[in-house]
Amino acid sequence: MSLISPIAWTPNHGVRILDQTLLPGEERYLEITTVPGMAEAITALRVRGAPLIGIAAAMGVVQGVGPEGSGLSPDLDGVEAVHAASAVLRATRPTAVNLSWALGRMVERAERHGTGPGLRAALIAEADAIWAEDRAMCDRIGEAGLELVPDGATVLTHCNAGALATGGKGTALAPIYLAHERGRRVQVIVDETRPLLQGSRLTAWELQRAGIPYTVIADGMAASRLRRGDVAAVLVGADRIAANGDVANKIGTYGLALAARAAGVPFYVAAPRSTIDLRTPTGEHIPIEQRPPGELAELGGRRLTPEGAAAWNPAFDVTPASLITALITDHGLLPPSGLTERLG
Amino acid sequence: MSLISPIAWTPNHGVRILDQTLLPGEERYLEITTVPGMAEAITALRVRGAPLIGIAAAMGVVQGVGPEGSGLSPDLDGVEAVHAASAVLRATRPTAVNLSWALGRMVERAERHGTGPGLRAALIAEADAIWAEDRAMCDRIGEAGLELVPDGATVLTHCNAGALATGGKGTALAPIYLAHERGRRVQVIVDETRPLLQGSRLTAWELQRAGIPYTVIADGMAASRLRRGDVAAVLVGADRIAANGDVANKIGTYGLALAARAAGVPFYVAAPRSTIDLRTPTGEHIPIEQRPPGELAELGGRRLTPEGAAAWNPAFDVTPASLITALITDHGLLPPSGLTERLG
Repeated sequence: MSLISPIAWTPNHGVRILDQTLLPGEERYLEITTVPGMAEAITALRVRGAPLIGIAAAMGVVQGVGPEGSGLSPDLDGVEAVHAASAVLRATRPTAVNLSWALGRMVERAERHGTGPGLRAALIAEADAIWAEDRAMCDRIGEAGLELVPDGATVLTHCNAGALATGGKGTALAPIYLAHERGRRVQVIVDETRPLLQGSRLTAWELQRAGIPYTVIADGMAASRLRRGDVAAVLVGADRIAANGDVANKIGTYGLALAARAAGVPFYVAAPRSTIDLRTPTGEHIPIEQRPPGELAELGGRRLTPEGAAAWNPAFDVTPASLITALITDHGLLPPSGLTERLG
Repeated sequence: MSLISPIAWTPNHGVRILDQTLLPGEERYLEITTVPGMAEAITALRVRGAPLIGIAAAMGVVQGVGPEGSGLSPDLDGVEAVHAASAVLRATRPTAVNLSWALGRMVERAERHGTGPGLRAALIAEADAIWAEDRAMCDRIGEAGLELVPDGATVLTHCNAGALATGGKGTALAPIYLAHERGRRVQVIVDETRPLLQGSRLTAWELQRAGIPYTVIADGMAASRLRRGDVAAVLVGADRIAANGDVANKIGTYGLALAARAAGVPFYVAAPRSTIDLRTPTGEHIPIEQRPPGELAELGGRRLTPEGAAAWNPAFDVTPASLITALITDHGLLPPSGLTERLG
């Protein structure tokens, strides 16, 4: 299986990233060798997906430190340069938890090592560790969800929670990739996921690369597709899971969960333990990011709405725990209830 | 209120149509003075909406007959020319029931009158009658549904069942226009309606023209919007209603009905009596048109899916009668059950 890697080191420990804004039309890689270059790539969504952003930021910090362990700006020593890089990168996507967490690890590692020879190598090692842990997390989610994707299964997914969003096999797509690796025949139905089309642009593209058959549908087709009775399961990712099991995920997930329930199709949410936020009591306490109305107003330079049209454009919705069959986590399958007792 | 008229006579009884394929970016009118010109406009979806297609075809037949009541081709007399025009126009959209019905009326009127002076005037009168009946049907649906749109109401709609689809106020939008005319403050939430965007392109445009405030959302946002608790009703049109009250309508309607039920929001289907097909026992017997996968693959020349992507693209889905609060018809509000007893 040719699983796409959206990020890589270059031989000199610059960072090669796949520019996800150009998919699926063009597969273009950028080589990033400066901190502002990585900040731009994250801000412009060239790298996206909370786990992948954390990895990219860690690799971006390395770009601020020279081979001798000094800062690349003449007035900063090595540790100061790491602090400065971290501040620039943290400001790119202020709400992404993984970003802040990964940068915190890089700063801590720099302070432990100190300015001087070996600092750059230590930072490279820390970024590699963050990446490796993410890859292992994806593998464990894949193992936990493997039983839900039997030979011959058709599964439905929403948005992109795959290799393009993580350092490994993804979250929702991990059980699908693992089933495919084990020789099971799997088919995937891909919601296009308006407005930003992460399903039709990104999930479709990475499944095609991996040789897994898929079919794209408009989001409004999912209810009638599920009703046909031949879909084994719905698998989606999560942006935050509250203590009571309510799940915030890409807008459209809640309606999809209602359609799955009406059709009697099990509905699974795949996410690492770190996505479960026990300090958030219920879904009502999860802040929902509102995005610019322009995402609904035009596409590729073509106007889709009249000039001056109002639009409502929340990035996420909340699916109540009662509609979720189970969580697929790096700690195994968990029921969406009793998370505090089990994990707190 | 400035209600858009998507069709009109020119002073010489040519036909002026609004080219709906260019909306919302451009408001361009075409003057059609030949039968093939009208056939092209219907085939290319420049005029669309089942009621409007019937009216346009009737007005198109007039273009085949000269002022003296003879055919415009030298070898056809007037009645023969009407038959020929009808055959050309009928072939444009073979599944639209109104088209066939309107052309049948035009042929019958021509045969009743015969070739000779006054034929063209008789055909113009028949087309005007078809148009006037459609306008009256819209008004009756508006009256029947007016009580569902109180002052201050926010309603949600899907696709375009408005002035751009009929010869009058539309079906689903008729109660909204009437409430607005009566001075009630109304707000409309408009599903963009992928893949062809009849909501964001057409419904938004005609509501803006009429001065009615609206907000566009992606189809996947409707469930979470309805859950906020401030939407008075969902109003949609219908393409066919089975004897048991199941409704075929634009893809996405079924998922919207599930979301409305989950949120406790009443769900209404507006359609003339002629849309209720008592010979179709249930929704399972309604054939669902499959449209080309390309509608999901690109937009405005921009690729949305990888080359070679498979897509499933049904034009309609079926909403079971159990999810429908009532039908809004030109014969008043009807429950979706017991239609055969009431109308048969």
